[in-house]
Amino acid sequence: MIDPEIIDTLVVKNTSKIVFFIMDGLGGLPQADTGKTELETARTPNLDALAARSVCGLLDPVGYGVTPGSGPAHFALFGYDPVRNNVGRGILEGAGIDFPMTEKDLLIRLNFATIDRAGLIIDRRAGRIDTETNRRICSALRDHVRLEGVEVIFEPVKEHRALLVLRADRLREEIEETDPQKTGLPPLPPKATVPEAVETESLLVDLITQAKKVLAGEPRANMILLRGYAKYRRFPSITERFGLNPLAIASYPMYRGIARLLGMNVLTSTNTIEDEIAALEENYGRHDFFFVHVKPTDSRGEDGDFAAKVKVIEQVDALLPRVTGLNPEVLVVTGDHSTPASLASHSWHPVPAILAANTCRPDRVERFGERDCLCGGLGRMPTVHLMGLALAHARRLEKFGA
Amino acid sequence: MIDPEIIDTLVVKNTSKIVFFIMDGLGGLPQADTGKTELETARTPNLDALAARSVCGLLDPVGYGVTPGSGPAHFALFGYDPVRNNVGRGILEGAGIDFPMTEKDLLIRLNFATIDRAGLIIDRRAGRIDTETNRRICSALRDHVRLEGVEVIFEPVKEHRALLVLRADRLREEIEETDPQKTGLPPLPPKATVPEAVETESLLVDLITQAKKVLAGEPRANMILLRGYAKYRRFPSITERFGLNPLAIASYPMYRGIARLLGMNVLTSTNTIEDEIAALEENYGRHDFFFVHVKPTDSRGEDGDFAAKVKVIEQVDALLPRVTGLNPEVLVVTGDHSTPASLASHSWHPVPAILAANTCRPDRVERFGERDCLCGGLGRMPTVHLMGLALAHARRLEKFGA
Repeated sequence: MIDPEIIDTLVVKNTSKIVFFIMDGLGGLPQADTGKTELETARTPNLDALAARSVCGLLDPVGYGVTPGSGPAHFALFGYDPVRNNVGRGILEGAGIDFPMTEKDLLIRLNFATIDRAGLIIDRRAGRIDTETNRRICSALRDHVRLEGVEVIFEPVKEHRALLVLRADRLREEIEETDPQKTGLPPLPPKATVPEAVETESLLVDLITQAKKVLAGEPRANMILLRGYAKYRRFPSITERFGLNPLAIASYPMYRGIARLLGMNVLTSTNTIEDEIAALEENYGRHDFFFVHVKPTDSRGEDGDFAAKVKVIEQVDALLPRVTGLNPEVLVVTGDHSTPASLASHSWHPVPAILAANTCRPDRVERFGERDCLCGGLGRMPTVHLMGLALAHARRLEKFGA
Repeated sequence: MIDPEIIDTLVVKNTSKIVFFIMDGLGGLPQADTGKTELETARTPNLDALAARSVCGLLDPVGYGVTPGSGPAHFALFGYDPVRNNVGRGILEGAGIDFPMTEKDLLIRLNFATIDRAGLIIDRRAGRIDTETNRRICSALRDHVRLEGVEVIFEPVKEHRALLVLRADRLREEIEETDPQKTGLPPLPPKATVPEAVETESLLVDLITQAKKVLAGEPRANMILLRGYAKYRRFPSITERFGLNPLAIASYPMYRGIARLLGMNVLTSTNTIEDEIAALEENYGRHDFFFVHVKPTDSRGEDGDFAAKVKVIEQVDALLPRVTGLNPEVLVVTGDHSTPASLASHSWHPVPAILAANTCRPDRVERFGERDCLCGGLGRMPTVHLMGLALAHARRLEKFGA
């Protein structure tokens, strides 16, 4: 298949609007007794009507058999090759708490741990301290840890997990993890794996020593373990690549963080799906590309709760007329990946998709479901090409070659 | 997807015949009242019978969402990666008038323009002079413009458009366009963008000065503007790549030009679809690969004339038995791209295709139409792989690997 970046060379601007309505983890697997997936089970008259007048298909987020994380799955949705643009763990941790990253940042996943008096790790997760304790400890670390010429930020995440950010010039990510992955061993040193990272290594050695002192009085979280070092990487934004003025509407911090990585404007005021749709309506005049992210389909899938996932889909269906009522030139309804309740996790199965536009060549799909989408006009396609197709239907791409 | 050039390593020769019957701009979009595309609307008993005993599918000329020009669309049909082999504008202009290019040629799109006494452009298209005037002026330029050691050719195209060819060693295409794209400004100098192009720059400065003198007495076309510089690029021919002895039968110069770029033998004697089919019959014994190009499907699509495009398809259908009657080992019927009458332009929609051969594994498609082809045995595939498939069905490819 062609390089998805070829579309960048064809972009023209107009006033059309594109809405990507993303139900996280939408794709599913059949229940044993009914033989139907979550989406096939849900009563979805509005999605079915939309499917009937649209072109449908099945999207592969990364590739055959590959179960994507949220990062690559969303990058693909927005036309960014998910393999070439794979994002370091630290950056996704930062995105996960919607941390405003800068080009000087080295982002590191930090786990609090418990060591004994001999300095050996006895609990790699510090007994899963509660998030409140985490907050208190991060605040203490922020107050007392100092590195010459480097801004140091400790951000609590959840339980024993935190984000460590070093902000300075010349930081490098080529450092070995300090978590030995086993108890009964001391933490490993943060060793540079390339000569250019030696300076960063010294800074981290100093930082760990200081942190250990600050935490000396803690009963459980008396040590830190570092991994997932990732130097912030600037991606060409959706505005730069496609000339769009994008708005991300996502109630969960992680997805706002990913949207920010791609230069989207981000709303932080929503909590429910209704909030998100109201925000879409309110902001519809001010942008031309909208990423609306619905989280509970994935959450209920991860819970393994088939019936609850069906309910979320029905809830979205009931709200859909408010989205279609805006009459965007292009409306895409799909997921970032599959999260079958029967697996209670992300999976590699392709994701059902609807693309609605006046320039669609309709197919024979009359119902929105995995099996129905099999004979849809989109066929089975790599997710990464969806954005180009949306731009084409929005008449935002000029002809290639003479 | 695999590199389309892998088939080159597998080619074997035999006496089989392959016919590519190409209806330009074949794919369409539904009419609002009937919900049917041009091809679905047309009465096509012969194409339907062919579809029923063949394998069908939908072809993507370049990629999802990409609307191809005629160059890339045809390159893909003949198994040439349309992105890697994207052809410069000047070369396509040359192909457009079926100009016999050589390896020494720098091909340039030339527009006649009007400048005032201060040398400022007042009409970038010289009032769209008629083609007869264009011919007269090109002839005068041919007679009077001389460059030391360089053959200079002025070929009229249409109205204010012409092709300028410089034929010599060491010419370069890295030159800036001289059209400032606005009136009220003087033409830009033909500046070299790399040091190696400085010699070509001097030649063009000299040429423009001479041309200006020759045109001094013209009321409208008193200046030339240059763009689309393209050094002729030799592509490996269809004979070299696939061991075929090809014949192109195309009534329109552009498609003969493209065929010539790929080393095909070219017939210039046809005007109508009937002529083309008669030419196929006459020359059937002398070649083994035939590219038959039907232009009016695209022309009526570009006109936005749904009914007329339907008529052309029906006309082709009526003639089809003369093609099938030749019993080629492989018969492909498809288009180079879609040209829906509702858009009155090329589009990015995939193109319905039939591949008929004794070695086909038939599918359930019984009618030749966009929706029917959705569930065809070819699935939805990149056009560039069609040639490999045709060669396989012609038993012209050996096994890959042991």
